Amino acid sequence: MHRNIIVGQSGGPTAVINSSLAGVFQAAKDLGADKIYGMRHGIQGLLDGDYVLLTDYIKSPMDVDLLKRTPSSYLGSCRYKLPPIEMGKEVYEQIFTRLNELEIDAFFYIGGNDSMDTIKMLSDYAAIVGSDIKFIGVPKTIDNDLAATDHTPGYGSAAKFIATVTKELILDSLVYDMKSVTIIEIMGRNAGWLTAAAALAKGADCPGADLIYLPESTFDPESFTAKIRELVAKKKSLVIAVSEGIKLADGRYVFELASEASSVDAFGHKQMQGVGKVLADMLAARLGIKTRAVELNTMQRCASHLASNVDVTEAFQVGAAAVKYAFEGKTGQVVTLDRVSNTPYQCITGCQDVHMIANVEKTVPAEWIIDDGTNVSDELINYIRPLIQSEVPPMMVEGLPMHLNNLYF
Amino acid sequence: MHRNIIVGQSGGPTAVINSSLAGVFQAAKDLGADKIYGMRHGIQGLLDGDYVLLTDYIKSPMDVDLLKRTPSSYLGSCRYKLPPIEMGKEVYEQIFTRLNELEIDAFFYIGGNDSMDTIKMLSDYAAIVGSDIKFIGVPKTIDNDLAATDHTPGYGSAAKFIATVTKELILDSLVYDMKSVTIIEIMGRNAGWLTAAAALAKGADCPGADLIYLPESTFDPESFTAKIRELVAKKKSLVIAVSEGIKLADGRYVFELASEASSVDAFGHKQMQGVGKVLADMLAARLGIKTRAVELNTMQRCASHLASNVDVTEAFQVGAAAVKYAFEGKTGQVVTLDRVSNTPYQCITGCQDVHMIANVEKTVPAEWIIDDGTNVSDELINYIRPLIQSEVPPMMVEGLPMHLNNLYF
Repeated sequence: MHRNIIVGQSGGPTAVINSSLAGVFQAAKDLGADKIYGMRHGIQGLLDGDYVLLTDYIKSPMDVDLLKRTPSSYLGSCRYKLPPIEMGKEVYEQIFTRLNELEIDAFFYIGGNDSMDTIKMLSDYAAIVGSDIKFIGVPKTIDNDLAATDHTPGYGSAAKFIATVTKELILDSLVYDMKSVTIIEIMGRNAGWLTAAAALAKGADCPGADLIYLPESTFDPESFTAKIRELVAKKKSLVIAVSEGIKLADGRYVFELASEASSVDAFGHKQMQGVGKVLADMLAARLGIKTRAVELNTMQRCASHLASNVDVTEAFQVGAAAVKYAFEGKTGQVVTLDRVSNTPYQCITGCQDVHMIANVEKTVPAEWIIDDGTNVSDELINYIRPLIQSEVPPMMVEGLPMHLNNLYF
Repeated sequence: MHRNIIVGQSGGPTAVINSSLAGVFQAAKDLGADKIYGMRHGIQGLLDGDYVLLTDYIKSPMDVDLLKRTPSSYLGSCRYKLPPIEMGKEVYEQIFTRLNELEIDAFFYIGGNDSMDTIKMLSDYAAIVGSDIKFIGVPKTIDNDLAATDHTPGYGSAAKFIATVTKELILDSLVYDMKSVTIIEIMGRNAGWLTAAAALAKGADCPGADLIYLPESTFDPESFTAKIRELVAKKKSLVIAVSEGIKLADGRYVFELASEASSVDAFGHKQMQGVGKVLADMLAARLGIKTRAVELNTMQRCASHLASNVDVTEAFQVGAAAVKYAFEGKTGQVVTLDRVSNTPYQCITGCQDVHMIANVEKTVPAEWIIDDGTNVSDELINYIRPLIQSEVPPMMVEGLPMHLNNLYF
């Protein structure tokens, strides 16, 4: 018996999404797969007939370990959303024709909520047309907003980067003998998990961020200003962590405040400010204080040089588990990480019917947000802490992290 | 015989400025110093009588090694500039009264061009009044713009961070199957050394940045746009490194273009954009292409989690050498790093009369800037490469780098 498989990556990248790809690849090899295909740019690539044999690119155990340490989506990604089955029959026919041509037995999709939706649709269609192809979702997102799984691969490494940089920026902010406010802008439009990671900076050697604002709480510029005014009177240097997605009571994003005025630049282009810059400018104007905005930007999702070993390992495991589940005959499932205990931290892979989780966005529970929405609870810190433990040192060549050669150079 | 010493830090911090402090501390102990004082916030702290006994804070070999790995200026910093001797006699009298009260034999100042000026003035004044106190400058700046020394401690670690992040961002930029331009904004208002470090990203596994713009060359928005238009037609994703300080032919900074229009935000505050954002907006408006600006910000100077071992070691050595030179009777000197050879890389400490180097800003030589100011030469890459070699792994505690407890918490 031979079994061919195909794997794709979708949505935004993470520092460890390729560790899951390595897990799928390694398990498929170990469990006797014949051909191991990779879709270029996800399902879009499959539709376009754009795929590769992964064995042409991953040729040695060294390559597998390099792949685990390579940021971004090795196969490329897409944001293609499948139409409802009843409205897009020809798309599904095209996909299944491709899969049948390649004699695919199992299809793996590494991604977030949208990607799990793709797995749901494809497994539903397979049931309708009586196809034997197995469809399994492999979870990934720095946002940690997937339901059903305790946490998502990608989150731990982003959290480790955010907490590390927050510690370093707090020390940097103390250098001069003058009052200052530093605003760190962190990703996560709707879920505050990433911003909450700034709380990990607090420890024996660091007082931590002074205030932490998640998108789950309504943001009030007036009470924010009052709070800063009060803290600035007592403390030289403040460091504030804010989610890019914090919103006003009327539902607008705080960053939209910047475009209220006529902010058109010299090129006639409407300026969009990040929320960090908006708040830094606001405090400078209102309190006459030195402010600075630091946007962590895409570095949060690609800093594989500081990846968490727990995260890299779990990302690899969910990839490998997906293959095992498919080869056992499962389909329409998403692999999950199930935390068994926190002390000691123990976590195992499981799976769950994809219909139970697709398109449900998991946000930070209200009880983990404290102090009128300006901080997070110890329970939340205890939830995150195990996920950032231990390191995967990059393979350093000529002083820089080595990556597996990219498909798109 | 007992000898007391005092040490201060000045100007902007670096990832390894504390390694130089550790070098001064350790050498002073090893060479038999009695009391080891630290000025809080540099010369400003000394004037205010604000100093500490460093032995109260650095109590063990472990503390010394933690200090080497602690970013920011442990003692705090200042930007205080001494007046000319003839105009500020009372300031000098105040400083020397303090130093005499503490029975100081040697004074060390870790800093950049302004700090070396301080060493010059104080040693000149000592000569005038017949004081025996030795004054030695310890070089530090991420900008690498100090004359006389081959390179400055702090630069190698910043370069390593910039090159690493550039590699990661290049991979990240390739994720989607669409045209895009990413602009990485790098520090260095007048000298392009830091921006040039982006060139190190190029290697067996990475094509490197597509264009690199240093402040030493005049920037022309029209030829920049034409160049991007040409490259975008041939290549999916471009990554451009630009110095924050690039200037137009008329002498204005490029970032000033943003404020030409009525860019006043909702709070009546005039918006200041970084050059990365200005160029990203310009390209989006002119070419209708997806653009992104990534500002590396203060992370460049405080990412001790990715410090270069060569840099940490040399920073420690220049601190230790300063003490040795002072105890040998030298004064009015700045410690230098003298490169002996590039293959193998060998570098030794030396010293030079501070009058020769104070207030001379070393920029990138014109012959190392190539392709009409859009790239840097192999000679420049060969100059930088040895400085980013090897790592100093942070001491990781609970998943995060541990730092020596800060004086200002």
